[in-house]
Amino acid sequence: MNTTILFAGGAARWPIWEAPLRRALEESGIHADLTTSAAPETVDFIVYAPSGDIPADFTPFIRCRAVLSLWAGVERIASNTTLTQPLCRMVDPGLTQGMVEYVTGHVLRHHLGLDAILRSQNGRWNPVAPPLATKRPVGILGLGELGAACANTLATIGFPVMGWSRSEKTLQDVDCYHGDEGLSAVLRRAKIVVTLLPATTATENILDARRLALLQQGATIINPGRGSLIDDDALLGALNSGQVGHATLDVFRTEPLPIEHPFWSHPRVTVTPHIAADTRPETASRVIAENVRRGLAGEPLMHLVDREAGY
Amino acid sequence: MNTTILFAGGAARWPIWEAPLRRALEESGIHADLTTSAAPETVDFIVYAPSGDIPADFTPFIRCRAVLSLWAGVERIASNTTLTQPLCRMVDPGLTQGMVEYVTGHVLRHHLGLDAILRSQNGRWNPVAPPLATKRPVGILGLGELGAACANTLATIGFPVMGWSRSEKTLQDVDCYHGDEGLSAVLRRAKIVVTLLPATTATENILDARRLALLQQGATIINPGRGSLIDDDALLGALNSGQVGHATLDVFRTEPLPIEHPFWSHPRVTVTPHIAADTRPETASRVIAENVRRGLAGEPLMHLVDREAGY
Repeated sequence: MNTTILFAGGAARWPIWEAPLRRALEESGIHADLTTSAAPETVDFIVYAPSGDIPADFTPFIRCRAVLSLWAGVERIASNTTLTQPLCRMVDPGLTQGMVEYVTGHVLRHHLGLDAILRSQNGRWNPVAPPLATKRPVGILGLGELGAACANTLATIGFPVMGWSRSEKTLQDVDCYHGDEGLSAVLRRAKIVVTLLPATTATENILDARRLALLQQGATIINPGRGSLIDDDALLGALNSGQVGHATLDVFRTEPLPIEHPFWSHPRVTVTPHIAADTRPETASRVIAENVRRGLAGEPLMHLVDREAGY
Repeated sequence: MNTTILFAGGAARWPIWEAPLRRALEESGIHADLTTSAAPETVDFIVYAPSGDIPADFTPFIRCRAVLSLWAGVERIASNTTLTQPLCRMVDPGLTQGMVEYVTGHVLRHHLGLDAILRSQNGRWNPVAPPLATKRPVGILGLGELGAACANTLATIGFPVMGWSRSEKTLQDVDCYHGDEGLSAVLRRAKIVVTLLPATTATENILDARRLALLQQGATIINPGRGSLIDDDALLGALNSGQVGHATLDVFRTEPLPIEHPFWSHPRVTVTPHIAADTRPETASRVIAENVRRGLAGEPLMHLVDREAGY
């Protein structure tokens, strides 16, 4: 019987993904029909990304062994009750690498005061060096694949790094905290906070007015995780009062961020258009192919989503 | 006999250095008179930094065991023929750390296109992620203490790093080149070039018009090393033609950089006011104290300058 892989990532993504997926499947020795259209009962695997034309009802996919997400964040599909098939998140080495570069770059940007340097090319010579990284504790909220990779790189550069996760974790060279009290401790000490938690009901508005008030005066927030992690109004209030000195935001409750949203024009906000963690077709296709191979061989799938936790 | 240490770093620096130096000397168990004024024949060590009121003639310092520079770059004093006493450069772990932060921050700034992001907070959502660091080869000219530290950190982050030095060197995870042909090879392949060579007659204008022409179209130059490494007029020509896409310069032939200098207003130049490698009084004072201890104990001094090479 043929293996059928349905690409349900939206018509716009197909031209980007078709060649790398075919190449990765071939390199894994998998003979399969990779298609954008198939009778549901013939589909063995669904390659998924949020889009207008994805299946809303997974019930007819009776033969489907797994839904393989092209995205790390699966909140849009994880709550679909018709999806009873195994669901796998994307853990793309290219995506992780891109996130590390984004987070490290923006942490160093704020640490070195680059915005002020770029604004003041005015002939005035004011040779004041920033403090060393050792004086600038960074808090990373979320110690999954992405948070852990960022924490490790920042620690290597010399920042004192505190990591926070819901459940207890241990990382070398990172002070690990967990639970509600742990979160308060991190927020009180960090001068730069990076939010890399998954979007779940437990993390919604985790940075609310109460928790933002724990931050040091002028602290920096970098959110490349999920828009729902921060209470937007509370953040605007904290920015206006100077409690938060700057927020660099890559993710939003509504994307694209509407042109009238106050974040765009706020002098203490930098908007980046959801570019911190781009899935890279070349590396991600290899992950998809490996999971197809495992599914066909009856081996355990990689990066299975815990449907109760939602990530 | 008392040990006398003359602080010859200029009146403006004395308030910054006095306390950390006294603390470091005390921690090393050294009993010495640390002073800004002493009869030359009574001075055992000179702590030196370029300034208007430093000794121009070292001949009367007949008892002086060593001149201990607070700066890494010693070209201003190394050529002083009256200085026959041993001369030590500063190799300050804090200075090296600061340089690593500056170089890593500016490499990531250019890599991630942060200038364009900061300029375009205009409501337009254009989600194009930069390529991964693996696609952005960085060339480091100079593999001394500072160049090697920067090369290692950039390699850890994921950049392919090429290092160049006059004589052959080997570094883990860094492709090392040397000699004139090696320099050409690095310049042809690098998308970002960082200049961290000492200022000597051999490195003066090492990036001249001929070598700048070897660069890829739109390459970035970051010079936190010495102003004399680059031919300013050739650089302006390469910036105007677009051969060099951007230059971030921390050091200049004349400092402060005169307000009328074209670098200040050039749209493709970022001027930083010699802040990349600030000697940090706390860490550097410990290095000074250790060299005083060694000098008194007759042990070999650290970081002795090779007067012929000039560094």
